[in-house]
Amino acid sequence: MADWPKSVHIHEEGPREGFQYEKGPIPTEAKVELIDALSETGLKEIQVVSFVNPKRVPGMADADEVVKRFRKKPGVKYSGLFLNEQGLQRAIASNKIDVKGRMVLCASEPFLARNQNATLEQMVQGVRNMIGVYKQNAIPVVEGGVQAAFGCNFQGEVPVENVLMIVHRIMSIAAENEIHLENLVLADTMAWATPRKIRSVVGAVRERYPDIDITLHLHDTRGMGIANAYAGLEMGVHSFDSSVAGLGGCPFAAHKGAAGNVCTEDLVFMCEEMGIDTGVDLDKLIEAANLAEKIVGHPLPGSVKQGGSLAKLRQAARAAVTA
Amino acid sequence: MADWPKSVHIHEEGPREGFQYEKGPIPTEAKVELIDALSETGLKEIQVVSFVNPKRVPGMADADEVVKRFRKKPGVKYSGLFLNEQGLQRAIASNKIDVKGRMVLCASEPFLARNQNATLEQMVQGVRNMIGVYKQNAIPVVEGGVQAAFGCNFQGEVPVENVLMIVHRIMSIAAENEIHLENLVLADTMAWATPRKIRSVVGAVRERYPDIDITLHLHDTRGMGIANAYAGLEMGVHSFDSSVAGLGGCPFAAHKGAAGNVCTEDLVFMCEEMGIDTGVDLDKLIEAANLAEKIVGHPLPGSVKQGGSLAKLRQAARAAVTA
Repeated sequence: MADWPKSVHIHEEGPREGFQYEKGPIPTEAKVELIDALSETGLKEIQVVSFVNPKRVPGMADADEVVKRFRKKPGVKYSGLFLNEQGLQRAIASNKIDVKGRMVLCASEPFLARNQNATLEQMVQGVRNMIGVYKQNAIPVVEGGVQAAFGCNFQGEVPVENVLMIVHRIMSIAAENEIHLENLVLADTMAWATPRKIRSVVGAVRERYPDIDITLHLHDTRGMGIANAYAGLEMGVHSFDSSVAGLGGCPFAAHKGAAGNVCTEDLVFMCEEMGIDTGVDLDKLIEAANLAEKIVGHPLPGSVKQGGSLAKLRQAARAAVTA
Repeated sequence: MADWPKSVHIHEEGPREGFQYEKGPIPTEAKVELIDALSETGLKEIQVVSFVNPKRVPGMADADEVVKRFRKKPGVKYSGLFLNEQGLQRAIASNKIDVKGRMVLCASEPFLARNQNATLEQMVQGVRNMIGVYKQNAIPVVEGGVQAAFGCNFQGEVPVENVLMIVHRIMSIAAENEIHLENLVLADTMAWATPRKIRSVVGAVRERYPDIDITLHLHDTRGMGIANAYAGLEMGVHSFDSSVAGLGGCPFAAHKGAAGNVCTEDLVFMCEEMGIDTGVDLDKLIEAANLAEKIVGHPLPGSVKQGGSLAKLRQAARAAVTA
């Protein structure tokens, strides 16, 4: 138990993950309402949109408008996803997004081929190009990322050695460019991870690169999200991507491919109940989760919004004793 | 990782947990169909009904008929829940139920007062009475159980010392009656547990009573079920109660109080993916989970039945390599 962190950082991705996948259309107003509600929960970093081609992702066609309208809360960082220079320029132009440079590679070549019609070397070249763009725009590159770090629908197992090789590529490109990466996101892109895989991959990366922080990006397609997060906590991981209410795909909405991220309020519940500080007001977060569910108009997979926090029960129990 | 068991025993409780809570009516035929399907999955112990007062639990009014009709598979044990002598006599009379004597106490007096309108001493007296009944009927008493072992909606925290005190009571009554308990079920009756609580309670019980096997009975009301099971595995726990498809309450069916047990196929998925043998054919179990969902006519909370197992993906990935 000694390795558990005292506190964790949560990167809330619900507005981006969720509204990207929902069949919608979701009114811009509603997206803004959810972001503003999340800003009041104590979350320190919220990914609000992705700056992608509206033809490919119609749900993000109003990204610039969403960014224009949401209310920036002091102390909260607002991130946006972008995949190319055009997206980066939109993020910069918004003047509201905390733009950070990222270098992302994929640990599975078959996934890359299927998903992006690219080879690893082409992906590496893309990363090098983006580094040039970041430099031109004075954007610091602070984060690395590995897709398919725990398994792949098209490759099957992804050996730990593959992941280490990809991390090595990222670190080498960083070194060549005098970039100091603060953080490495290991993504369970296709929900293959179990706690055992988390231990082995995180352990191997940590052993080779003890100085970089690790963030886990976990999908809950097979119900392992919270257990995988716990396995991460046991390894001392103190940074997680997650999604309010489990936004980002709903197992009951018949679009199986789009299974959601690990649910933020369930993760917060687990951490807080174990004495790990999240900085988040769980009851406010549950309200935001209920709002998310109302906005999309169908059940979302998070559990704690249904089961409730324990705060009121504790209070009532104490009151009963002293009454 | 060294403590993980090589294999686990799963006590499937779906037919009993689920059909007890579902608003129904569920046709007897359908209940039998699910039990028969579960018998073919490799599960070794299935709880098929509870022998309770049909006025209190209308969903179990056809319990005797269900037991009469299901097909007994060699090598599978079929259990039934009973709470008093009348229920025990029905179980014995069925001639198909593997009747085992249990001694169950509760770690929370406020829960006892609310739920059973009893004091701990009254509950102890009830246990003593049932031991007499077991003896008269030559039923071996092999299992102890602790309700509310991880927290309580009416008491709040349940200190580990309370749990140890209750286990001590159980062990003392067993010793007085020359009963050798093989197994102790620690139940998270109201879904208060987190992995930390699992570690502390299981650790404390294990330290004091190293020779008794521990079974975890986990509810998933707050999404912690699988993570709690994992924490149990890490402590060497190799016996779990669980419920196919998460039967036993559905977070989407607006009866919040009745949140389901940890989902059997999600638990099997985690174990098998971590190299822990369950004896279960996951794909057959997923079929049974889909059948359960069809029978109740609304979504059930399990994830793997939606996300799918990895077996076919692995097979396809291998085929692609050799093609």
